[in-house]
Amino acid sequence: MADTVFGKIINGQIPCHKVYEDDKVLAFLDINPLSLGHTLVLPKEPAETLDRLSVTGVREYNVLENNGASAHQAIAHVHFHIIPKPNRQEGLGIGWPVRAFDHQQGAQLASKIHDAIS
Amino acid sequence: MADTVFGKIINGQIPCHKVYEDDKVLAFLDINPLSLGHTLVLPKEPAETLDRLSVTGVREYNVLENNGASAHQAIAHVHFHIIPKPNRQEGLGIGWPVRAFDHQQGAQLASKIHDAIS
Repeated sequence: MADTVFGKIINGQIPCHKVYEDDKVLAFLDINPLSLGHTLVLPKEPAETLDRLSVTGVREYNVLENNGASAHQAIAHVHFHIIPKPNRQEGLGIGWPVRAFDHQQGAQLASKIHDAIS
Repeated sequence: MADTVFGKIINGQIPCHKVYEDDKVLAFLDINPLSLGHTLVLPKEPAETLDRLSVTGVREYNVLENNGASAHQAIAHVHFHIIPKPNRQEGLGIGWPVRAFDHQQGAQLASKIHDAIS
């Protein structure tokens, strides 16, 4: 597997607005945010996808967990969707309205989240 | 917290196409699938959202993990997005093109997935 921009952030070659780190996981603010506080959580181990199990014959899929009615939660009990993506028409449709990132605001927010979960 | 349809599936009042179960977790096929194999994974403990931490002041949010370019994965290293949903315009846009569910095909598929991960 080729190294990625995330590999470079994990090994410190590229800086980030860190909100959490331990020996297995790193979390930081996405610099192409869909909303203020959009955070990325990743394992330090370099793996491309969650697994390669493909019982349905489809290798691409989304894992989605929604919180709140505005965020498309329909049933008030935590649940993760695992949704195969066989083609453009089927599977999860994703709208990705990227917004501007303010690095000064980002540094303050990352620090605030980091303190809140420490 | 009021009981939900998921609570009723967990306690056996409502049937499901089960693919995995242990003492903490239940996974079954979504009967309003976006694609063949659309699976729900949920904790048996009745909780409404992953947490109630709200450093950004926004209580609704999505957790999304994409696998494969067609499923909107841009960086080849597993990562989870945590995306606040402050209003209709900001945050994750979701397309939810529900398809028909075939119960006979579903029973076979759930059994196949169950066997593959056992």
